[in-house]
Parts: sequence; structure tokens; C-alpha cells
Amino acid sequence: MAKLFVTRTRARYGETDASGIVYYNSYFVYFELGRVEMFRELGLPYDWRLPIADTACRYHASARFDDLLEIRSFVEEIRSCGFRIGGRVYRVIEADPAAEPTLLVEGHTSMVTVDADRRPTPLPDAFRAALTPLL
Amino acid sequence: MAKLFVTRTRARYGETDASGIVYYNSYFVYFELGRVEMFRELGLPYDWRLPIADTACRYHASARFDDLLEIRSFVEEIRSCGFRIGGRVYRVIEADPAAEPTLLVEGHTSMVTVDADRRPTPLPDAFRAALTPLL
Amino acid sequence: MAKLFVTRTRARYGETDASGIVYYNSYFVYFELGRVEMFRELGLPYDWRLPIADTACRYHASARFDDLLEIRSFVEEIRSCGFRIGGRVYRVIEADPAAEPTLLVEGHTSMVTVDADRRPTPLPDAFRAALTPLL
Amino acid sequence: MAKLFVTRTRARYGETDASGIVYYNSYFVYFELGRVEMFRELGLPYDWRLPIADTACRYHASARFDDLLEIRSFVEEIRSCGFRIGGRVYRVIEADPAAEPTLLVEGHTSMVTVDADRRPTPLPDAFRAALTPLL
Repeated sequence: MAKLFVTRTRARYGETDASGIVYYNSYFVYFELGRVEMFRELGLPYDWRLPIADTACRYHASARFDDLLEIRSFVEEIRSCGFRIGGRVYRVIEADPAAEPTLLVEGHTSMVTVDADRRPTPLPDAFRAALTPLL
Repeated sequence: MAKLFVTRTRARYGETDASGIVYYNSYFVYFELGRVEMFRELGLPYDWRLPIADTACRYHASARFDDLLEIRSFVEEIRSCGFRIGGRVYRVIEADPAAEPTLLVEGHTSMVTVDADRRPTPLPDAFRAALTPLL
Repeated sequence: MAKLFVTRTRARYGETDASGIVYYNSYFVYFELGRVEMFRELGLPYDWRLPIADTACRYHASARFDDLLEIRSFVEEIRSCGFRIGGRVYRVIEADPAAEPTLLVEGHTSMVTVDADRRPTPLPDAFRAALTPLL
Repeated sequence: MAKLFVTRTRARYGETDASGIVYYNSYFVYFELGRVEMFRELGLPYDWRLPIADTACRYHASARFDDLLEIRSFVEEIRSCGFRIGGRVYRVIEADPAAEPTLLVEGHTSMVTVDADRRPTPLPDAFRAALTPLL
């Protein structure tokens, strides 16, 4: 099973919408928080030539303001010119920290390594070496 | 072919990110603008019990600040308890308004009709009647 | 009285928050929409070396999802190294287009002209010439 | 001197804009993070009838993606029907944690206590008792 990278954040007031729950595009911000922390732990540069090729999210339950969220990120796939990172966002049950958190959403994001002209270019060795053992 | 609903907006400065292009989650805002205008044209209530079940986006080219964007929305699928709306975002070539706009991203969003307890409930007749001819 | 520059937008779902109204920082996006359209009309470059020095907003009434908003922008002050743009956001009464819109918020934003090292530099002549008659 | 409430966050990628720095309205999100943590420490409900009456921000230096930010919040004023919370956002110098952080922005937000009809109502005793010793 893929190694999980875990980080936490609280749902912010500005991330909610008039239906009272966290707005659907906020989860892509959470997924990115997860990827940033994964890259930090791996010592890989995040702010690099890594445009996003596609992303998706499936919603199971909703988060509310101030919910403590746990973001779990993992390598789903390594490709010749990029990779795909999976993400899941959970609500931590603060009254019972030992309880398994509730799965809210799951999704993924594919990133492509490109050259200075933004053409796909083979995944650099440093990325391949760091990501391969995580699958 | 499904009927297209078309609306336009300009990429806002706050929607860009430090890579100089529109941030990846902004397209879910554009998709929603498209759905809102589709519902307005159809006379359907948007702000209704319609939680989002899943969404996805594939990125082909990027938008920059102040680009004139055209959002095309269409019904992709009607389900027993919901439906799926497709969306494409184009960049209008302002110097040549007759030119075909450039496709930037394409995606979709599935919405589920739920009852007051947020359990899936059959798609109301008004929705079915309005959406079916659009497929 | 200062010349008014007017543009309109609808309050987006993602701009609302769990209290059911438009989130307080969204008005700074609306103010910027107003400034961008002002600069477009004046033929001035918006995406220039114009960092923001300060901004403020006073809230009188709230906007809800899909409200039609009118943003009025005007030059409040011209300084040696910058200027201050005022903004007001109104809710258009769609049922009675002849009615005076409702004032929702008023505020301002000060921008400073800087050189390549981000040190304040005198307001370029093109800006001074374009903005002075508007006071 | 007013008691300081301190919390930290990292500047998120989606909070930056095409100029490469954190977008100007993101600081109002940071100010709110500070207020939420202040209220949590004080045991006061945040998600209460507390509409915002005005807010302002003065920008001294800019934050970039992934900067570690420290938000300091404090009570600036207690009024008959509300209060004003000040906020400052600093960049932590991670290479030298003992160094004084760099002040980026300072601002404030006034909140009004209202009744169920959204008319100003005297500040509840629980708020007055909790906030007064902090001035």
C-alpha cells in the first residue's frame, strides 16, 4: 500500500458557502496543502514546472466551519512525464481522538513535468527516485 | 448533440496564482457560473437541495489575468436521483472575435437530488422535464 | 464630484459563507473589478507596478447569492507616488430597474507607483494626465 | 498593552496572485484565523451574531508562497454594541527562529453584536467580561 503523508488544517469560515458547508472547490486547496507537505517531507521542490493536467474529487460527506480536517496524500501513479497524487480529506472526531476520522472526500491530481517551453519532459531522476519507493 | 448554454466572464486578478496563470480550482467556480446561467435560462432553482457528488477537470491550456473566458455548459447525463452537467471553458480571441475560441479546460459535475435529511430522492419532475430535451 | 466608473457582476455562490451572505473579503475582489474596468476605460495598464498600500471597507448591508451588484469606482486622491481609488458596491433592485440601487459597502484602495526595486517612484505622467481630470 | 493572541499558518499557493505575492484580500482571511483562535482561547462562540461593520489593512511588505506567517490579534476597543479587533501578520524568519519576525501588514476589524432582526444590541456580558481584561 502506498505510503501516506498526513497533514491537518481547520475548515476556515471563508471556505464555507451559503449552504452552511465547505464550498466544493475548497477541497482542491486541501489536496494542494497535502501535496505541499508531501513534497516538503521528501525534500522535493513544489514550486517547480509541474502544471496540473487533471484533477477530480468525489464527495461523501461535508465539512463545516472549524472542523478539524486531516489530509492524507499518496502517490497513485508514476508516468514517463509526470505522476498522479491521490488525496483524501477526513474530519477528525475531536471528542474522541482515538476514533477513526470520517472520510469526507477523495480525489487525485495529475501533474506533468514540462520544459521551459511548457512541453512535457521526462520526469527528472530526483522525482523518480523520491516517488518510486512510495507506491 | 446536447444543447449548449453559454456565458462569459473575465479571469480576475485574484483568481491567478504565483505561476502567472489562473489557479486550478478557479475553473470549478467558472463551471458553477455556467450551471447557474443554465438553470436561470431553464427557470430552475439553483440554490436548491442539490449537493455535488463528484467533479473533475482536465486542463489543456491556461488562462491569464483579464482573459475573456467563455463557459459552455450542457447536460451530460440524467440519473434517477440527479444529473451530470458538463462544462468547457474557452479563451475568446478578442483580436479576432470570429475565430473559434481556444479550449482551456473541460470537466463535469454530478449533482444529487436529496430530501430534507440529505438522502437521495428521485429527480423532481420539473427537473426531469426541463433537462431531458437538452441531452 | 469625481467621475464614476460603473461595472456589474453577480454575487457568486463561492463568494458566500455559512452565514448565508457574501463573505467580507469578497468585496475587495469587487473593488478590484471596478478598478480594472476603470483602467480599461482610461487606457491605463492595470497589471503594472502598482502595489497596494492600504485598503478599507465599511459594511452597510449584505449581499446574497446571485444578487446583481453594481460597482462604482472613482479617483479619491492623487499623490506624488500613487493615488487612492474609492469604491462602492450596490445591490441592483432587479424588480424595479429604475429604483436607486441599495448601498451595501463603501471603501477605498491606495496604490503606490514603484520602480523595479519596489521603491516608491513619482506617478508617471500618463497616470497623472488620465486621473487628474477625474477628481 | 493589549494581550496578544498568536497563531501561525503558511501562505498557500492559491492565496498568491500573478504578481508572485499573496493576494491583498488573503490578509482578511488571516485576520479571521487570528480572531477565531482568540475566541477559542477565550471560550467565546465565534459563529455567532457578529456581523462585520468595517475592516482595513495597511501593507508594509509582501508574503510569498509557503512563507510561515504569524498572526497576532488583540482587542483594540470595546463598544456599547460591539468591539474592534486588531491584527498584525508577520513573516517568521525560519532560518533564524530567534529573530523578530518581519511585519507584513496591520489592520483591524469591527464587529457589531446584533439581535435576531440584525439590529445592534448591547454587547452580551460574557463578551464584555472576557474582552475587557485584554485591553
